[in-house]
Amino acid sequence: MKPVQPLGEEKVFKDPVHNYIHVQDRLIWTLINTPEFQRLRRIRQLGTSYLTFHGAEHSRFSHSLGVYEITRRIISQFERGGYEDWPREESLVALCAALLHDLGHGPFSHSIEEAFDMDHEEWTCRILLGDTEVNRVLEEAETGLAERVASVIRKDYEKPIVVNLVSSPLDADRMDYLLRDAYFTGVNYGTIDVDRILRMLRPHNGRVVVKESGMHAIEDYLMARYQMYWQVYFHPVTRSSDIVLRQIFRRAKELFDQGFAFKFLPYPLPALFEGNIQVHDYLLLDEALVQTAFMQWTREDDEILADVCHRFMQRRLYKYVETDLIDLETIDSIRNEFARVGLHPQYDLEIDFPTDLPYDVFRPGDPKKEKQILLLDRQNRIQEISEVSDIVRSISGIHRGRYHLYYPQDKLEKVIHQLSEEVAAIFENKINPPQMEFEI
Amino acid sequence: MKPVQPLGEEKVFKDPVHNYIHVQDRLIWTLINTPEFQRLRRIRQLGTSYLTFHGAEHSRFSHSLGVYEITRRIISQFERGGYEDWPREESLVALCAALLHDLGHGPFSHSIEEAFDMDHEEWTCRILLGDTEVNRVLEEAETGLAERVASVIRKDYEKPIVVNLVSSPLDADRMDYLLRDAYFTGVNYGTIDVDRILRMLRPHNGRVVVKESGMHAIEDYLMARYQMYWQVYFHPVTRSSDIVLRQIFRRAKELFDQGFAFKFLPYPLPALFEGNIQVHDYLLLDEALVQTAFMQWTREDDEILADVCHRFMQRRLYKYVETDLIDLETIDSIRNEFARVGLHPQYDLEIDFPTDLPYDVFRPGDPKKEKQILLLDRQNRIQEISEVSDIVRSISGIHRGRYHLYYPQDKLEKVIHQLSEEVAAIFENKINPPQMEFEI
Amino acid sequence: MKPVQPLGEEKVFKDPVHNYIHVQDRLIWTLINTPEFQRLRRIRQLGTSYLTFHGAEHSRFSHSLGVYEITRRIISQFERGGYEDWPREESLVALCAALLHDLGHGPFSHSIEEAFDMDHEEWTCRILLGDTEVNRVLEEAETGLAERVASVIRKDYEKPIVVNLVSSPLDADRMDYLLRDAYFTGVNYGTIDVDRILRMLRPHNGRVVVKESGMHAIEDYLMARYQMYWQVYFHPVTRSSDIVLRQIFRRAKELFDQGFAFKFLPYPLPALFEGNIQVHDYLLLDEALVQTAFMQWTREDDEILADVCHRFMQRRLYKYVETDLIDLETIDSIRNEFARVGLHPQYDLEIDFPTDLPYDVFRPGDPKKEKQILLLDRQNRIQEISEVSDIVRSISGIHRGRYHLYYPQDKLEKVIHQLSEEVAAIFENKINPPQMEFEI
Amino acid sequence: MKPVQPLGEEKVFKDPVHNYIHVQDRLIWTLINTPEFQRLRRIRQLGTSYLTFHGAEHSRFSHSLGVYEITRRIISQFERGGYEDWPREESLVALCAALLHDLGHGPFSHSIEEAFDMDHEEWTCRILLGDTEVNRVLEEAETGLAERVASVIRKDYEKPIVVNLVSSPLDADRMDYLLRDAYFTGVNYGTIDVDRILRMLRPHNGRVVVKESGMHAIEDYLMARYQMYWQVYFHPVTRSSDIVLRQIFRRAKELFDQGFAFKFLPYPLPALFEGNIQVHDYLLLDEALVQTAFMQWTREDDEILADVCHRFMQRRLYKYVETDLIDLETIDSIRNEFARVGLHPQYDLEIDFPTDLPYDVFRPGDPKKEKQILLLDRQNRIQEISEVSDIVRSISGIHRGRYHLYYPQDKLEKVIHQLSEEVAAIFENKINPPQMEFEI
Repeated sequence: MKPVQPLGEEKVFKDPVHNYIHVQDRLIWTLINTPEFQRLRRIRQLGTSYLTFHGAEHSRFSHSLGVYEITRRIISQFERGGYEDWPREESLVALCAALLHDLGHGPFSHSIEEAFDMDHEEWTCRILLGDTEVNRVLEEAETGLAERVASVIRKDYEKPIVVNLVSSPLDADRMDYLLRDAYFTGVNYGTIDVDRILRMLRPHNGRVVVKESGMHAIEDYLMARYQMYWQVYFHPVTRSSDIVLRQIFRRAKELFDQGFAFKFLPYPLPALFEGNIQVHDYLLLDEALVQTAFMQWTREDDEILADVCHRFMQRRLYKYVETDLIDLETIDSIRNEFARVGLHPQYDLEIDFPTDLPYDVFRPGDPKKEKQILLLDRQNRIQEISEVSDIVRSISGIHRGRYHLYYPQDKLEKVIHQLSEEVAAIFENKINPPQMEFEI
Repeated sequence: MKPVQPLGEEKVFKDPVHNYIHVQDRLIWTLINTPEFQRLRRIRQLGTSYLTFHGAEHSRFSHSLGVYEITRRIISQFERGGYEDWPREESLVALCAALLHDLGHGPFSHSIEEAFDMDHEEWTCRILLGDTEVNRVLEEAETGLAERVASVIRKDYEKPIVVNLVSSPLDADRMDYLLRDAYFTGVNYGTIDVDRILRMLRPHNGRVVVKESGMHAIEDYLMARYQMYWQVYFHPVTRSSDIVLRQIFRRAKELFDQGFAFKFLPYPLPALFEGNIQVHDYLLLDEALVQTAFMQWTREDDEILADVCHRFMQRRLYKYVETDLIDLETIDSIRNEFARVGLHPQYDLEIDFPTDLPYDVFRPGDPKKEKQILLLDRQNRIQEISEVSDIVRSISGIHRGRYHLYYPQDKLEKVIHQLSEEVAAIFENKINPPQMEFEI
Repeated sequence: MKPVQPLGEEKVFKDPVHNYIHVQDRLIWTLINTPEFQRLRRIRQLGTSYLTFHGAEHSRFSHSLGVYEITRRIISQFERGGYEDWPREESLVALCAALLHDLGHGPFSHSIEEAFDMDHEEWTCRILLGDTEVNRVLEEAETGLAERVASVIRKDYEKPIVVNLVSSPLDADRMDYLLRDAYFTGVNYGTIDVDRILRMLRPHNGRVVVKESGMHAIEDYLMARYQMYWQVYFHPVTRSSDIVLRQIFRRAKELFDQGFAFKFLPYPLPALFEGNIQVHDYLLLDEALVQTAFMQWTREDDEILADVCHRFMQRRLYKYVETDLIDLETIDSIRNEFARVGLHPQYDLEIDFPTDLPYDVFRPGDPKKEKQILLLDRQNRIQEISEVSDIVRSISGIHRGRYHLYYPQDKLEKVIHQLSEEVAAIFENKINPPQMEFEI
Repeated sequence: MKPVQPLGEEKVFKDPVHNYIHVQDRLIWTLINTPEFQRLRRIRQLGTSYLTFHGAEHSRFSHSLGVYEITRRIISQFERGGYEDWPREESLVALCAALLHDLGHGPFSHSIEEAFDMDHEEWTCRILLGDTEVNRVLEEAETGLAERVASVIRKDYEKPIVVNLVSSPLDADRMDYLLRDAYFTGVNYGTIDVDRILRMLRPHNGRVVVKESGMHAIEDYLMARYQMYWQVYFHPVTRSSDIVLRQIFRRAKELFDQGFAFKFLPYPLPALFEGNIQVHDYLLLDEALVQTAFMQWTREDDEILADVCHRFMQRRLYKYVETDLIDLETIDSIRNEFARVGLHPQYDLEIDFPTDLPYDVFRPGDPKKEKQILLLDRQNRIQEISEVSDIVRSISGIHRGRYHLYYPQDKLEKVIHQLSEEVAAIFENKINPPQMEFEI
C-alpha cells in the first residue's frame, strides 16, 4: 500500500454528537466526496422513526461519519498504547471499512430489503467493487484496496481483528448509532460514556476486548441499547409506519407484475420491480424518489395503492391492539370476518411480533464467538461478560414481545357492528385503548 | 368562540430541544394531524445548510412544534401572572398562529421564492383560507377562526399584542430556531437561556416587553443570533449551494419557457413554471419532489441543466473568492473574458453579497416600532434596548459582508491560462485559498 | 392552618441541576433563610467522596433545595391532574418536610453517626421541635406545624401518602441525589429522565405509584442508582477516606475518655465526646469545625491521632487488597503479626465489606410495602415492579461485594519482610495491585 | 532536565467540565499529591459566591487540575502540529506552572489579600521556593526547576511564550474558570467552544496567537467573559458578602492590635494578624479555619465582631441601594447622620464601586502587549483583535458600574425616621427595592 497521504492540514466536520469529526488522510476526504457516499444524505438513519420521534430526521451520512470518527479514536488509542496485537498497517483499511460500511443501504432499507429480497451488505460490496467512483478512488490509492475493504464488510478478511473492530457487539457502528439516535430523538436513555469505553478497549489475540475494570461501563452500554430497542427501535407507532410502507411496496409490485399502467413510474423503478437492478441504477434510489413515487401514487387508479400511500404521506397510520397469544385459526377467522364485511383480509390486517426485526439484540452467552463481548482481567485471562455480570445476563430475557394486530381504525369503525362478537371484542379491547398508545 | 376542548389527558411529543412538547387542546392536536401540517416534515428548516453542517437535516415540522411550545409557555406564564395586559381570550388564536405560521413554505423556500417570485406568508394565508383540512378544522372549532389566524400572520389582527407575540425580534419563532439550529448543526453559539428570557417577558400596552433586569439575557440572545448568522446562516458553503440551486430553478424555467421537452416533469411542476399553481397543487410540492426532479434532470439533454443538477446532488459546489469591492465594469469584463474562453458568462459566475438574504438581522434602534426590543423598568417606563446596551448597539455594525464571486473551479482550471492576467489574478488569489474556506 | 401566604413575586434560585428552583410560598422562603437551614451549606452532600471525585464538593444545602423543587413539581402535577387521592391541604406540609428532611445531618454524617452513635433523622426532629428559629417559623405559620413536619420525617404522619411522597424508593430525595451527585462528580451514569418519571407518578390509595407505561423509565432509574452505588458511593478510595475519618473520631474519643490534654478542643466538641450535646450546640457542628480540629490535631502529642489526621488532611489514604472470603482466624493472625512487627493491630488494619453502608440499596420484591415500587396498570391494578421487570429483578443480585483490607502502605512496606510468609502474601497480592485501583 | 518519566499507564481524574483530566508524567502526579496542592481543596474557587449561587462550592483544586488539562491539550496540539515556534523542551515547565499557579491563594483570597495586604502570586513563589514538599519534588526532578516555574509565575521567564501560554487574556486559566464557574453556578453564559479555540491557537514569535478564522470563537469567548462578570463575579449579593467578610477581618485585626482577649484565636492566626506569617504556617490557613474562627467569634464579647460574624455565617447580608454618582460630602453627611442616630459610621455603611475588583476585565486595544489578543492572518500578519471586531471594541465600554451603598437593613429600619429627610430618602429609594435585587 502506498504510504498514507496526509492532508495539508487536518480537516474537520462539525458534528453535534462528537463535536468534531477529524479527517487526516486524503483518501478519507476523497471518499467522503464521492457521489456514492454523498447519496447517504438521502437515506434516513432510522427509516420511518421520524413519524414517531419528529427529531429523528438524521441520515446515514452523519452516522457513517460518526462510525468513522469512533473507529479513528479507537485506532489512535491502540497506536498510542503501542499494543502489539494491533496491526498498524491495517489502520487505513479499517477506517475505510468503518466509513463505507453502510454504502449499500437503500431507501427505508429494512422495509425495501424485505419487500424485494435484497441485502444491504451485499450491495455495499457490489458498490465497492463495481464501476463506481468509490472503487476508482480506493484502487487509485492502492491496487486491491477495494477488495480488501469489501472483505472486511463480508467478514472474511484475513486479519480477524479488523473485522472484529468494524463489526462486533461493541463496535463503532453500535456506539455511534446509540449516541446519535438518542441525540436526535431526544430520548436520553442512549447516552453512554463513550470516552470511558474507548479507554477500556484493548486489542487482544485477534479480538477487541474490554479491560475488566470497564465492566460497569459495558453494563451501562448494554442497558442503553436495551432501552433504545424498547423505547425507540421497536416503538409500535414506528412498526405501524413500517407496515404501511411494506404494504405500499407489496401492492406496487403486485400491480407491476399484473401489468398495471402506472401514471408515474420513473427510472429506475421498473428495474427494481423486475428484480434485475444494476449498481449504477441502484445508486439512483433514494428516499426522495420513493417519497415522490408515493405522493404521485396517491393519484393512481388502484384504490388500495392510493389508500396506503395517502396513509403514509399524511401519517394516517394503522392503530393496533396488543395480545398475548394468537393462533392461526383465530387469525383466519378474523380475516374471514373482515372479507365478509368488505374489508380487505390482507391489507386491512397485519400481524406483527416485535422481535421479527432487523435489529441485532445482544444475547449474552451467545455461542458464536464473534457475537460475544469479552473481558480481559489483570492476569490476561478472558471471560465472556455474562459470566461475570448479573445485569447483562438479565438483559437476555427479552420475552416481553407480544403480538400486535394492526388495522385501519377508520375503516374498521364503520363495520365493526357487523363483525362477529368474538372478533369485534378483540378490537374493542378497552383494556388497551389504542389512542393512548400512540402517544410517545 | 366555543370553549376550548381539552384533551382527555395531555399529550406530549418527545423533542430534543424542549424535552417535551405539551398539547392540551384538542384543536392543536387535530391541526398537527392535518395533511397540510404533516407536509412540513418534507421541508427542511435550514434549506441547503445540511450540505455544510451535516446534522442540519431537521424539518419545519419540528420547528413549528417548537414555536408552538415556546408560545404556550409564554402564554401560560402570562396567565399565571394574571397580567391584565394579556387578553386571555386570545390564547388559542395565538397558539394556532404560532403552530401554523410556516405552513406556506415551499421546498428550499428562500430559493424557490426568489426563482418564482412567491411569498411564504401569503401562501400560509392561502392555505389557511383555502379548501384545505386546516381550514375545515379551524372553522369547525369556531366560525371565522381561520380568518383570525390569517390576520395574525398578515400582522393586521385587531389585537396588536397577539401579532407582537407571534412576530417580533424576540418572538417564539426566533427563539426556537436559534436553539434548534444550534442543536442540530452542533454549533453551540446559539444556546440561549430561554427559561430566563421567558421569565422576563411581560405583556405591556399591546406589546411583549422585557423586564429591565433581563437585559443581559437579551444581550446574550442577540449575540447568539449574530453568531449564528455568521457561523451558520451566511456560511459561504451554504451560499454556494443556494446559488447552484437557484441556477437549477432558473435554467429549468428558461427551458420550460422555450418549450423544452423535459423527460421528467411530474405534476404539479408545469403549473409552478407557468406561475398559476393553485393551493391544492402547491401542497404537493415538497423537497422529495424537487430532489427527485433534480436527480432525473441529471439525465436531461440540456448540458447546463444536467451540470448544475449533478453538482447539487453530488455536492460538487462552486468555489469562491472574496473581494472587498467590485464595480460593474469589472464584473462585465470578467463575464466577457469568460465568454471568450468558452465559459458561460452567467451560469459560470455568480456575484453574492452576504446580506442579500432572507434573514432578518436585528438592527438596534430601528425606527419601526414592531422591530424594536423594549425594556420595562421598575417605574414602568419603556426604553428601546440599544439606548441602554453598548453590546447591542455594536451588533448593528454588520458591515463585515464582502462580495463573493462563485464559480465552478473544475471548469475554470482548464481555461484559466487563457484568461487575461487581470481576470486570472482575481481567481488565483492566493490570499484566500478557497479550499481552506470550505472547511467548516 | 393559615392560608398559604404567597410571595409578592415568585423567587428563584439558579440551580445547575434543575435550572431554577421556584419558591412561591413565603413560608418556604423564610425557612431557607433560617440559620439551621443555612448551616447545611457547611455539610457536604457526599462526605469524603470529594477525595475521590474532586467535583463532589456540593453541600446538603443544594441537595435540600433540589428535593424541595422535585417535590414541588410532583405536587403541582398532582394538583393540575386533579387526582382525588392527593390531599391538597397537605401540600405545604409535604414541601416543608422535603426541604427540611436533612436538617439533622452532622459533619461527615455517616462517619460521625457511627462513631458517636447518633441518628440524623432523630436530630432533624429535635431541631424541628427544639428552641430553634426553624421551629418558631413553622409554629408562627400554624400552631402544630413543626410537629406535623417532624411526624412526616418520623414516618408516622396520619396521611401515609405524605410520608410516601417524602420517603420511598422513588422519592424526590433519591431523584435529586442521583442527578446531583452525577452532575458534580461528572459520572454520567446517574442521568435519569426525571421529567418522564414525574409525568408517570400518580397518587393512589395512600401511595405514590407509577403508571405502567413508565416502567422503562423506572428500570433506567434503578440502573442509574445501581451504577452510582458501584461507581461512586461504594468506591474503594472513598471507603478508605471514610475509614481514616472513623479512626480519627475513634482515637480522639479514646483520648478524651482517658483525660488526654488536647491542645485544641473548641466548643462544643467536649459535649459531643461526652455524649450529651444539646440542640443549640449541635448546630455549631459543621465540616469547617471538624476539618479545623483535624488540622490542629496534626500537632497533638498523640502519635496515632496526629498520623491519621495528617493522612486525612493531605489525602495520604490507606491502600487496600481485595479478598473473596476471610475468616476471623485469619484476621486475628494478621493482627497478631502486625503487633509483632510493631504495627498497630487495630489502627493499621481495617476490614471493610462494601455493603456495610448507610446507602439504601433497592431490593426488588422487598416484603416491606413502603420499600416497594408499585406500577399501576390500565385497569387500576397494582403490581410490584420486580414481578414485571427482569432487569429490576436482576439488580437485586448485588452479591459482588468483596472484603477489603485497608492498611497504611508506607508503614507496611518497611516491615513486610518481617511478616510471616502467609500474611505477607495477602498484601503482596500482585493480582490486585492497589495503585491501579486508586485511579478513578 | 532529566528526561520526563512517564507513568506506567496514563492516570485520569474524572472531571465534570473536561470529562477526564489526563496525567502522563510522574512529576505531575507527584505534585498533585503534595500537601501544598491538596490544601487547595479547602479554598473555594469563587470565594463567597456560593452565598449567591448555591452550586458555586467548587475549589481551586478542581480549577487547577482544569488549567493543567487545557494547557496539556494546547501543548499537545502544538507538538502534533510540529510548529517551530513552540520550544518542546519547555513543555513540562509550562505544565507545572499551569498546575501550580494558584498555590499561593489564601482563604477567601481576594478579601484576605485586601485586609492583610498580601499577594497570592508572591505567595505562590514563596511556596515554590520555600521549605516545602512541592519544592523538594520539583528539585528532585531537576535542579533549578522550582525557580524556573516561579519565574514563569513572576512573568520574567526567559522564554516569553511560556509566560504567555500560562498568563494572557486567552490563557488556560481564564478558559477553565469560565467553563467551570458556568458549570457549577448553572449560569450558562460561560459556555464556550473550547475545542474550537484550542484548534485555532498557534505559537508565533514568542506569543500564542489565534488564527484569523477563529475570530468569532474569540468574540464568543469575550462575550461569555463579559456576561460572567456582570451575572456572577460582580453580582451585588456576592459583593455584599465580600463586604461583610472584609469587615470581619478588619474588626478582628483592630481588636488584635488593641490587645483584645480573644476566646478563640488558634494557631497560626496571631502571626497573620502580626503580619509576619511564614510559609509553613501560611499553609495551615484554609477556609475551614477561617469559617471556624467566624463561628467561634459569634461568641466573642465585642459586639461589632460578633454581629458581622453572625451575619456572614447565617447569610444575613447587607442590603444595598444603587446610585449614579455620589460625592464625598454626601458620604460624610450620611456617616454623620448615622453616628447621630446610633449607627456605626463605618461598619454600618460601605460604599462599593463594582470595578474596584480583582477581576481582570479584558480591555480591547490595551497598549500593553501582553494584555492583547492577537489574530494571525493567512499572510502571517498579526492584528490586535479590536482592530477587526466591532463586538470586541464595544465590550470595552464597561461604564455600567454604579455606586452601591451597602448597609444592615434591620438596624437601619429602626432608626430611619430619625434620619434627616435627605439621607433617609437615599435609603428609602423605592426606585430600587433591595429585596428584588436579592433574587438571583
